[in-house]
Amino acid sequence: MLPENQLGNDAHNRRRFILNSSIMLGAAAFAQFPGVSLAQKFMPNQEQYTVQQIIDLIIIEAKLTVFKNTVDTIKVGSADQIVTGIISTMFPTVAIIEEAVKLNANLIIAHEPTFYSATDNLEKQETNAMIQKKLALLKEKGIVVWRFHDYSHFMQPDMISLGVKKKMGWEPYQKKGEPLINIPAVSLKQLINQLKKNLSIQHLRAIGDLQQNCSSIALLPGAWGVQAHISTIEKNNPDVLIVGEMVEWETAEYIRDARKMGAKTALIILGHSVSEEPGMELFVEWLKPKIPGMPITHIATGDPFLWI
Amino acid sequence: MLPENQLGNDAHNRRRFILNSSIMLGAAAFAQFPGVSLAQKFMPNQEQYTVQQIIDLIIIEAKLTVFKNTVDTIKVGSADQIVTGIISTMFPTVAIIEEAVKLNANLIIAHEPTFYSATDNLEKQETNAMIQKKLALLKEKGIVVWRFHDYSHFMQPDMISLGVKKKMGWEPYQKKGEPLINIPAVSLKQLINQLKKNLSIQHLRAIGDLQQNCSSIALLPGAWGVQAHISTIEKNNPDVLIVGEMVEWETAEYIRDARKMGAKTALIILGHSVSEEPGMELFVEWLKPKIPGMPITHIATGDPFLWI
Repeated sequence: MLPENQLGNDAHNRRRFILNSSIMLGAAAFAQFPGVSLAQKFMPNQEQYTVQQIIDLIIIEAKLTVFKNTVDTIKVGSADQIVTGIISTMFPTVAIIEEAVKLNANLIIAHEPTFYSATDNLEKQETNAMIQKKLALLKEKGIVVWRFHDYSHFMQPDMISLGVKKKMGWEPYQKKGEPLINIPAVSLKQLINQLKKNLSIQHLRAIGDLQQNCSSIALLPGAWGVQAHISTIEKNNPDVLIVGEMVEWETAEYIRDARKMGAKTALIILGHSVSEEPGMELFVEWLKPKIPGMPITHIATGDPFLWI
Repeated sequence: MLPENQLGNDAHNRRRFILNSSIMLGAAAFAQFPGVSLAQKFMPNQEQYTVQQIIDLIIIEAKLTVFKNTVDTIKVGSADQIVTGIISTMFPTVAIIEEAVKLNANLIIAHEPTFYSATDNLEKQETNAMIQKKLALLKEKGIVVWRFHDYSHFMQPDMISLGVKKKMGWEPYQKKGEPLINIPAVSLKQLINQLKKNLSIQHLRAIGDLQQNCSSIALLPGAWGVQAHISTIEKNNPDVLIVGEMVEWETAEYIRDARKMGAKTALIILGHSVSEEPGMELFVEWLKPKIPGMPITHIATGDPFLWI
C-alpha cells in the first residue's frame, strides 16, 4: 500500500535518532560510503541490541534517514528492550505472535498494521475488545512490534517489489528507472500459474482473457489504491497490472470497462498478504548478515481466506 | 457502501424539488398519507416522464425528502430528457450501456458509481482517457445515468438489504429494529451454499470454521467499511458477518485475529456487485406498478472476476 503520510526528514527526529543510536555519526555522514556495510563498520558485533538499535541499523543499512511522518513506528513495547530474536512477516497476527513466543523472539517486524487501521491509532479504539485483548497478549508475552512499511518501499530498489521479482525470476527484465517489467511473452493463464506456483498462492482473482499475451507487466503488490492503479495503466499501458488488493468499485470496474472499450490491460489480484510476503522474506536474507548471531526468522502470515 | 456524505434536507433543494416536479405538493405534505401510493394519486398515468419526474417519483414513493449532500445525482445527461425506458443495475458498466441501447432504454438507474470513484468527480479526472471514452459513449447514445444509492439505503426497510433477505427467505427472521437476522441454525458451509445458490454467486471467500453453527447473522451487503463491520460485531456478536466487499488489512485481519483469540464471528465476503444486486432487482418490482406503461428492466451487472 501507499505510504499514508507525506514522508520527509526532520531535524528533531534525526537528532533523536543520532542520540539514541549506538552509532554516534548521523546518517547523512554515511552517504559518502555507498555500498559499504555501515553497521558492521561502525557497530561491530555487539553481544546484544535494543529494539531501537535494530531499527537504526535497518534505516542506515537501507541508506535512508529517519522519516518525519511515517507509519513505521513501534506499535507495542519499549524501544529499550533487549532483542532476543526477530520475526519478519506481513501482519503481526495472533498466530504469528504465538510462533514468536515459541521461537523466543521478542521483536516482530511486520509490514502491515497491528490493529486493523492504517495508523494503528489506539486512542480511537479504546472500546474495541479485540484490540485490547491483542494488546494485552503482546504485553504479557513481552513482544515489541515495529512496522517496516514506508522504509521498505523507499529503499532503492523497493524491497517488497524486489522480493516478488526475485521469486518470479524477473530481475533481468526491468531496467533501472523503467516502470514496466518486460518478460518473454506468456499467456495470461501461464502468467497466473507461474505466480501461484512461485509465490505459493492457492487461489486468486483476475480480469482478462486467459489466452491474451502478457509481456509488459506493471507490478504493484500491496494496496496502492485506485489512483496509482489507473495512472500506472494510463501512463504505461501494460499488458497486465498485478496488485495485492484493490477496491472492487474502483480498480476492478475501471478495468472491466476499459477492456470492454478496447483497452488491453488485464488485472491479477494476488491478495494483499501473499503479494508482499516475498519482500518480508527477502528482508530476512538482507538483514541476517548485518546482525551476526541474532536469530532472525521469516514466517509467512498467509492468506486469511477460505475460497469456496 | 456507506453514504459518503452527511445526508440531510435543505430548503433550497427541497424548493427546487417541488418546483421542478410535476407534483405541486412538497414531499412533507405527503407524510400524512403513509402507505398511499402518492405518485399514482397525484401523478395519474402520464404518457411521458422526464428523468427528473422519475427521480422525484422515486423519492416520494420511498417516503424520503431530497437529501442535501448525496452521491445520488445525475452523472451524465439532462434531467429534462424524456425517458424511453429504465434499466436498473449495480454498476452502469459499458456492457450494461450496450444492453440499454438494445432495449431502447435511455435511463440507467445504478446503485454504484459510473466513473470509479465515490463521488464520480469528473473535474479531477479530465485526463483519464477511459472516463472520457465512457462519457462520450453515454452522450452519443443519449443515455442518462442516475445513481440510486443513499436513497435506497435510507428507505424503511433498506431496499438493498430487503432484496437479499427476500432472496434468502430471511424476512420472517428479523424483527423490526433488531440488528441481527436469526435463522434456524445451519453450518457455515450450508449457509455459504445457500447464499451461492440463491444469489447466483459462483465463487466467494470466507473466514471461519465450515462446521460451525450459524444462526445469528449480521447482513451488510456492499462496502460499509471497517468501522461498521467491527462495531456491528462488537455490539451484536453475530455467528457470522456477511459483507459485499472489505479491505483485507482491516476487516479480514480483524476477523482472523478475533477468531484466534476465541471470538466466534465468521466472515462471508460475497463480492460487492453480487451482494447488492438483489436490491436493484427488487427495486424494479417496487417501481413497475408506480409507472404503468414504462419499460423497466433489471439487468445484473455480474461479478467482474475470473476465479483461478
